[in-house]
Amino acid sequence: MYKIVFMRHGESTWNLENRFTGWTDVDLTEKGRAEARMAGQVLKDAGFTFDLAYTSVLKRAVRTLWLTMDEMDLMWLPVKNDWRLNERHYGALQGLDKGETAAKYGDQQVLVWRRSYDTPPPALEAGDPRASFDDPRYAGLPKDAIPLTECLKDTVARVLPCWNEELAPAIRAGKKILISAHGNSLRALIKMLDGISDHDIVGLNIPNGQPLVYELDKDLKPIRHYYLGDPAAIAAAQAAVANQGKAK
Amino acid sequence: MYKIVFMRHGESTWNLENRFTGWTDVDLTEKGRAEARMAGQVLKDAGFTFDLAYTSVLKRAVRTLWLTMDEMDLMWLPVKNDWRLNERHYGALQGLDKGETAAKYGDQQVLVWRRSYDTPPPALEAGDPRASFDDPRYAGLPKDAIPLTECLKDTVARVLPCWNEELAPAIRAGKKILISAHGNSLRALIKMLDGISDHDIVGLNIPNGQPLVYELDKDLKPIRHYYLGDPAAIAAAQAAVANQGKAK
Repeated sequence: MYKIVFMRHGESTWNLENRFTGWTDVDLTEKGRAEARMAGQVLKDAGFTFDLAYTSVLKRAVRTLWLTMDEMDLMWLPVKNDWRLNERHYGALQGLDKGETAAKYGDQQVLVWRRSYDTPPPALEAGDPRASFDDPRYAGLPKDAIPLTECLKDTVARVLPCWNEELAPAIRAGKKILISAHGNSLRALIKMLDGISDHDIVGLNIPNGQPLVYELDKDLKPIRHYYLGDPAAIAAAQAAVANQGKAK
Repeated sequence: MYKIVFMRHGESTWNLENRFTGWTDVDLTEKGRAEARMAGQVLKDAGFTFDLAYTSVLKRAVRTLWLTMDEMDLMWLPVKNDWRLNERHYGALQGLDKGETAAKYGDQQVLVWRRSYDTPPPALEAGDPRASFDDPRYAGLPKDAIPLTECLKDTVARVLPCWNEELAPAIRAGKKILISAHGNSLRALIKMLDGISDHDIVGLNIPNGQPLVYELDKDLKPIRHYYLGDPAAIAAAQAAVANQGKAK
């Protein structure tokens, strides 16, 4: 039997400001840092240890991982940064707040972008300064692999190769892995693991900074999953995300 | 022409307490953290950027690297942790302070261990709790690769394969690399690069937290090297190390 731990980054500055974030590289708030340290403490208290960690190339996930590793006294842990674990790209909505977006596109349209599995928000134009083509962290990628917008279906399509090529082989090799990522890249992984439908996955809310343990059988099928830590804190975090999600 | 940057970790708690550290996993002091942040600022101001970073499995070097990456807004940078970049193992002296050591072994003998290229301090006994055999970060190594003591010659012998197998190929592949390591693992690299004699290398003092740039030709032979940052600060750091080195 295998055990892996997923962690959504702690609260970010744009979670707080109620802006669509996507690939924008915003940092954690003080609360987000505290959540990450608490996650490390909870994992340590529960006797977890790891051989290898994965994260995205976005600092809110990297810092969450660093703070967790620090609390667990595992700063030496090998870390692999994989852009495929990035948050869903939110296209031309990146940087806009909920009010601005509703004013610009109408409430009904915004609801579709938020709740639909396969309708992406409007794409960034290629020349938009928010596009990632000149960002050195994506320099090794073919240009057509760098999104200008994504629906959740698109995110799933790039996260699954990361599972097949990186995560699953590491788990099968007996590595205990920790994955610090984002609401939608984690949804993609959980959708695949638990066989959740396209319709239901958009309703799954993953709280910030709460370690989520999946126990897998020898074929990497889930046996059970559970959050570590104080149930009241988890419920509160989940409720916060359900609200925050409305402008995410 | 290639450019690589070496960095010795910032001040550690045992630098401050004047204890032999070696493989003991002590953290940075507040001053050490400030040094690391300053190093990141200096690199950023000088227009440096990197594709890849290397460090040891000891937290004083890892944290120095993290703080530098954070200041440079390069938290996404791939990092490879390599035990071969660890500090020289200081054997049974690890944890002792200068006074205790002189009282136990005599001034003359301590001078030999400090200044000799090829005389190691007394080895830890295999059952000593300070030995690293049960430490998960060395679990993948054959037992005889894990030292119980080292002279600088021994450190050179394990650092050079890291150069040949990891660092040199990365440089030749055009990667801009940053190496956050320790006084003696950096001495080992610099001895090799500059062809410094066994006798002279022990007199080379590398200041804490000061980025050291090596420019290499196409055969990876040094063209020139220089510290970045304020010359007065570097001179002060170098003088501090020369004194500190007496009990290191």
